[in-house]
Amino acid sequence: MTFAERVLNRADELATHSSRPDGIERVYLTAEHRAVNDLVAGWMREAGLITWQDGAGNQCGRLAGAEDGLPAVLMGSHLDTVPGAGRYDGILGVLVAIEVAARLRDVDLPFALEVVAFGDEEGTRFGTTLLGSRALAGTWQPEWFDLVDADGVRLGDAAERFGLDPTRFGDAARTAEQLVAYLEVHIEQGPRLEKADRALGIVTTIAAAERRMITFTGESRHCATPWELRRDALLGASEAILAIERVARAQGSYATVGRIHVEPDAVNVIPGVAAFSLDLRDETAGGRDATWERIRSELQSIAAERDLDVAVSSTHVAPEVVCAAELKAAFAAGVAAAIGDDGAGSDAMELFSVAGHDAMAVAAVAPVGMLFVRCRGGISHHADESVRADDVAASIDALEVAVRQLAAEYEPR
Amino acid sequence: MTFAERVLNRADELATHSSRPDGIERVYLTAEHRAVNDLVAGWMREAGLITWQDGAGNQCGRLAGAEDGLPAVLMGSHLDTVPGAGRYDGILGVLVAIEVAARLRDVDLPFALEVVAFGDEEGTRFGTTLLGSRALAGTWQPEWFDLVDADGVRLGDAAERFGLDPTRFGDAARTAEQLVAYLEVHIEQGPRLEKADRALGIVTTIAAAERRMITFTGESRHCATPWELRRDALLGASEAILAIERVARAQGSYATVGRIHVEPDAVNVIPGVAAFSLDLRDETAGGRDATWERIRSELQSIAAERDLDVAVSSTHVAPEVVCAAELKAAFAAGVAAAIGDDGAGSDAMELFSVAGHDAMAVAAVAPVGMLFVRCRGGISHHADESVRADDVAASIDALEVAVRQLAAEYEPR
Repeated sequence: MTFAERVLNRADELATHSSRPDGIERVYLTAEHRAVNDLVAGWMREAGLITWQDGAGNQCGRLAGAEDGLPAVLMGSHLDTVPGAGRYDGILGVLVAIEVAARLRDVDLPFALEVVAFGDEEGTRFGTTLLGSRALAGTWQPEWFDLVDADGVRLGDAAERFGLDPTRFGDAARTAEQLVAYLEVHIEQGPRLEKADRALGIVTTIAAAERRMITFTGESRHCATPWELRRDALLGASEAILAIERVARAQGSYATVGRIHVEPDAVNVIPGVAAFSLDLRDETAGGRDATWERIRSELQSIAAERDLDVAVSSTHVAPEVVCAAELKAAFAAGVAAAIGDDGAGSDAMELFSVAGHDAMAVAAVAPVGMLFVRCRGGISHHADESVRADDVAASIDALEVAVRQLAAEYEPR
Repeated sequence: MTFAERVLNRADELATHSSRPDGIERVYLTAEHRAVNDLVAGWMREAGLITWQDGAGNQCGRLAGAEDGLPAVLMGSHLDTVPGAGRYDGILGVLVAIEVAARLRDVDLPFALEVVAFGDEEGTRFGTTLLGSRALAGTWQPEWFDLVDADGVRLGDAAERFGLDPTRFGDAARTAEQLVAYLEVHIEQGPRLEKADRALGIVTTIAAAERRMITFTGESRHCATPWELRRDALLGASEAILAIERVARAQGSYATVGRIHVEPDAVNVIPGVAAFSLDLRDETAGGRDATWERIRSELQSIAAERDLDVAVSSTHVAPEVVCAAELKAAFAAGVAAAIGDDGAGSDAMELFSVAGHDAMAVAAVAPVGMLFVRCRGGISHHADESVRADDVAASIDALEVAVRQLAAEYEPR
């Protein structure tokens, strides 16, 4: 069995730990979380790692032999999933990291080598994302203990049932002094590598994002109201949703309207209110904001044209996270060693990440680098998520070489 | 106090009977229904009518003196309301009819003269409209006893609590032999009379209507999905909603998209499903269907262009109801006598009704005629619903003259 086959087999085994029979769903602080932490801890120990679960339920491992106080290169990703998930998003990065640790167990490194399997990145259960990686980064917010899941269970209570002590969540936090770098391997969740015929890609930034609620308000009227007297909020929203597509596409930004509701939501009443969400992402905050300015201008024109009011509220904002130059260089060396000139050019392909990742949270305490692995059809968050064994093999090689290069260039602080 | 002032005062008094303090809401088989039936019955008796509540809770009155078996000219409308209603929709027609009965109490008519105040036209409480008028028309469906309101109360149980016997609902039914004609005065609920500077208008037809649910299906994908791989059902729906506006407006039809929902309705997931309602109305079923054919063609183009599926289901269909020529002529004589040449022309204005009315249901057993009264700004189903006292006076005069003309021309069957 090759290393890549072992990774794929382990991904299959993890996929059996789901809260539902008809697909994969595995969320924070549940029996499934418990089960995969235990499985992964066993694989970590096989790879020569000393293991522990941190104060926030992240499964950790550290290659034995390093001095206790030595700062660590941390590799990893997350084990939790969205509902109806695939078997590689997050998981692949954990399993590849374990393989690399195993390969380097007898190598004398100038830093400690650690693997982390975060308990929450997706935010499926409690609505707030990156809970595991933010605990590690020391940016956990105490009010999150009061987040509740769909059944009304408090996060704090779920943590206790899981065997954690909410007063000890802070123990999960690492300091900048303890971390040399964070390296994360992840499926691309997009089609750019596949389209470019590349197995691997080096992440430049993780996209800047902003989420807004946009509300058009007109007048609820009987459906017998003549066209010229209507102030139909849904017609305004429909124009706005199409304008958002047109503008964001032209600007190279990503825009998604995922939620919409109207009031009064009656079959024979013209909607007086239409409210929808907008998730807007771009490689940079500057690009995101430039796109938003154009969208905002369109919204105002549409509202004026239709005699509607439009109101906007921002519900979430995050700047882009820039991957560290030395970690991009290390991954580039890794990709070159793993693949060489693959016919599409000898330089590794660089691309930005539209999706969010644990690296966003860890960036608060360490330089971060990410390596993307080609996934079939760009499909993610779906049972059809798929990776090629040879690409997985290449990612293991590339991560190993990247760590070796960091070791070669390492200057203790 | 003029007749019109009495009508307006009574409308004000009826408006105080509401299930909510912050507006008017009065629905079928409630304490408010009980209260307004009792009030109206008193006014009917003052006008010289013998009164009874029929088997379905409609308040009825018959001018005393007519032979028992004599067929009747029936005048009226409904007393129930939508939530947040005005004080004239339906109500005006009942109050004007009582005034006309009072004026004709000593006139020797060749038919009986009756007034009806229907208990349900709007369908607010049980979702199904025209319950009162369909009971009178003999088209009541037994399964309606199992309709439930928002609190889960069965219509049958509500009827019993109201004092009705569900096994006796059939007693409300009239036969074609018992009815000479049905005449309904109603506010226009549109701005055409106001725009034409006319107090009154004669209804030609009540619009043909069809309601559909239209569902676009694409693919739910993570919001990191590139534009070219997206199959966003909401973008298809947005285009469709705008196409519906464009086509229906050009065709002179009325189209309303009042409801919409998407799945999975998550801020960071591209909607895989977007479903919306369409209420489509036109003066004729032929016009309605011609408009629908053009809309359907647009829906298919949009779906093809965006690689979406589109499915359509019809949830309600009604042909236009044509007002009887002799009743239009009687109302025309009434309008001429009431107003004469009002400066806008000596012929009464004809228009079709976009909204549905009790006359639609009664048409199953009698020729129907409707007279529209100008309302301010075309506003209806809203607290701002408003009529002019001089227009109300003209409508009383016109209805009286129409009944007198029917009497003059009446040939017993």
